[in-house]
Amino acid sequence: MSIKEKVDAANAEAARRIIAADPVLVDVAPALEVIPGMRDRLVLHSGPPVDWKRMCGAQRGAAIGMCIFEGWAKDHEEAARRIEAGEISFEPNHHHSTVGPMAGTITPHMWVWVVENKAFGNRAFCRQVESFQQFGDYSPQALSALVSWRDVWGPALRAAVRKMGGVPLKPLITRALQMGDEMHNRVVASSSIFTNAVAPALVESGLPAEQVVATLRYAGNHPFLFLGLSMAAAKSAADPARGVEASSMVTAMARNGTEFGIQVSGLEGEWFTAPAPRVKGLFLPGWKDEDAGADMGDSAITETVGWGGFVIGGAPGILSFTGGTAAEALAFSRDMHRISVARSPEFLMPALDFEGTGVGIDIRKVVQTNMLPVIDTAIAHKEPGHGIIGGGIVRPPMECFTKALKRFAEKYRG
Amino acid sequence: MSIKEKVDAANAEAARRIIAADPVLVDVAPALEVIPGMRDRLVLHSGPPVDWKRMCGAQRGAAIGMCIFEGWAKDHEEAARRIEAGEISFEPNHHHSTVGPMAGTITPHMWVWVVENKAFGNRAFCRQVESFQQFGDYSPQALSALVSWRDVWGPALRAAVRKMGGVPLKPLITRALQMGDEMHNRVVASSSIFTNAVAPALVESGLPAEQVVATLRYAGNHPFLFLGLSMAAAKSAADPARGVEASSMVTAMARNGTEFGIQVSGLEGEWFTAPAPRVKGLFLPGWKDEDAGADMGDSAITETVGWGGFVIGGAPGILSFTGGTAAEALAFSRDMHRISVARSPEFLMPALDFEGTGVGIDIRKVVQTNMLPVIDTAIAHKEPGHGIIGGGIVRPPMECFTKALKRFAEKYRG
Repeated sequence: MSIKEKVDAANAEAARRIIAADPVLVDVAPALEVIPGMRDRLVLHSGPPVDWKRMCGAQRGAAIGMCIFEGWAKDHEEAARRIEAGEISFEPNHHHSTVGPMAGTITPHMWVWVVENKAFGNRAFCRQVESFQQFGDYSPQALSALVSWRDVWGPALRAAVRKMGGVPLKPLITRALQMGDEMHNRVVASSSIFTNAVAPALVESGLPAEQVVATLRYAGNHPFLFLGLSMAAAKSAADPARGVEASSMVTAMARNGTEFGIQVSGLEGEWFTAPAPRVKGLFLPGWKDEDAGADMGDSAITETVGWGGFVIGGAPGILSFTGGTAAEALAFSRDMHRISVARSPEFLMPALDFEGTGVGIDIRKVVQTNMLPVIDTAIAHKEPGHGIIGGGIVRPPMECFTKALKRFAEKYRG
Repeated sequence: MSIKEKVDAANAEAARRIIAADPVLVDVAPALEVIPGMRDRLVLHSGPPVDWKRMCGAQRGAAIGMCIFEGWAKDHEEAARRIEAGEISFEPNHHHSTVGPMAGTITPHMWVWVVENKAFGNRAFCRQVESFQQFGDYSPQALSALVSWRDVWGPALRAAVRKMGGVPLKPLITRALQMGDEMHNRVVASSSIFTNAVAPALVESGLPAEQVVATLRYAGNHPFLFLGLSMAAAKSAADPARGVEASSMVTAMARNGTEFGIQVSGLEGEWFTAPAPRVKGLFLPGWKDEDAGADMGDSAITETVGWGGFVIGGAPGILSFTGGTAAEALAFSRDMHRISVARSPEFLMPALDFEGTGVGIDIRKVVQTNMLPVIDTAIAHKEPGHGIIGGGIVRPPMECFTKALKRFAEKYRG
């Protein structure tokens, strides 16, 4: 067997594992209870490893917010002082089977979605998605959404999910891909049908009616609710594909606002990083390109398993958020097949005549075709203290892929 | 002013009225309570007027079902006997500010959606959408869905809608058009977001928890729930556009399975009919083209106001129901602009780069361009006693438009 044949076979196996995934929401729980290695004074964050000195403004703001939320500091000055004194640790979500949107900050008492991949038995976790704290806003108003999630919505959803014995996510994602969602920044349909799915159990949970109603209002009007679920589902699907000997398939793409990092199945444990790129997109009123921080968040785990930019052609509604034309969006999705290992037999794109979505990014194909993955994403401010300022399209730095391919060639030269 | 200018101005006014419509769901109620002219032993039906002798098999089956539902007959033999004896009257829904899907049968104790067009003060009504009785199946199982609607789901939704003081439908439709719905046979997104909109009020209604849960399960899993609402909304929008002197705009397209009929604003009160066409489409397992009845239902009121086939390019998910390709669907929607009077400033199609939907069919343009409206539709059996057997695409007979244009020319020749 040639090296090429060996790598092809390894990639087929890695992609098969992603395709075989069966993500089921089994719980909603405090991070301390469920995330392996979670501990006091630990802040998990998005992207590859980064220390406070190199951390971008938005992620610093988000970390400060979590310190206040946890009661480790009473305000942002005290939080910054304690962090600089080394009292608070930082580790990447990806080192804990976890992902987080934007700054991705997760601390012990932040409630997370718990998704179990029933086909492989592994679990993955993702925090709640909202438009302020995770973007670096640490104001009391921004933190109040985390408090309601911890005290009201999270526990109510936990009761419903447990009463249902889990919520299989694959059927919801399959349907949502036919309803104009791309499972990254366009998750309005999946959020809506997920809320439909849990509503009866919420009512039957025996919780106070006010809590049930508050949770129905929250979930039923949250256009990004399902992003936390699609990220956890994607992470649970990607993790079993790690560590396949000789596989050149990407198992994680993650950004911390300072660096963009990728991980590769056959190079388990290593990160291949480059400076985080800037996002081309649309800004909310009052904001402009110069205000923007660089690309940030673990949410590119959705593209890692073939959603987001890979299926954006079927989600033209997102173009009001990212910019671009419907024809460009269709071209993006067609292009992504050129760098994919396989096609999903279950996730179909009606706008592409029910073609299967591309699954698994082959670093060889990326370098050979000079075609980088398309990621649609939100935009954070470059300074701490702000909520979401825009959205757009971004591509990873080619340097991540050339570095990884160089290392891959060294390791598997034979 | 030339006749052409006069007609153009009249059409602009007629289309303006459709665009200005503000449909709000204000109640869910027994037909007898709300539909003008509803009375004992009356069956309202879809399409232009038709008597029992000329009635198609599916509509006969549906009428028999309603006689059993109302207790006017104990079985189909007695129902047919009483109908043939002239004890039961038939009138078109459209003569009562009402529409109904497929056979469209509505009787006094059938609960209907009540939609008020707040911009004009008129009300329109549509019955529940289901996949059996309205297709001609009069079995006890088929009728049980009508009983649950009357006794459980309808009253629960009534309580929620009243508690909310009405549910504005335009915002829901605007969102659903960006979620792959076309508001005719693809209403999964609107059904889902409508259910989430009423869920909190359902819980707060004070109804027994079992009824709330049963209604959440019904509404949250009904892929056609919103069709009754979109039809009532469309009817409420189209009715104020009736009777505009010199307008050649269509105000109704309706089929009874025997004839296809259209109505024209400047020719108020008249029907222009031709034999109902056959539908080209896909059949459910076990059924084939020869089993199919001809085109049936008032649901083309959605195309009359610019939805359905007019926006099918943004709803490629429906192609698994109707057949055809995504490119054909986009071409249909572009084509429909050629026969439309105006563009909606509010209903936008992301798949066509947020173009406004075409509003109002001009019979002159249809005849001049030889371009017939595109209607997507379900298919009923040609004989009584069956549920849905398929779905597809249909165009009205050109004869309806040439007849109407001839009459229009006679009336407005000057």
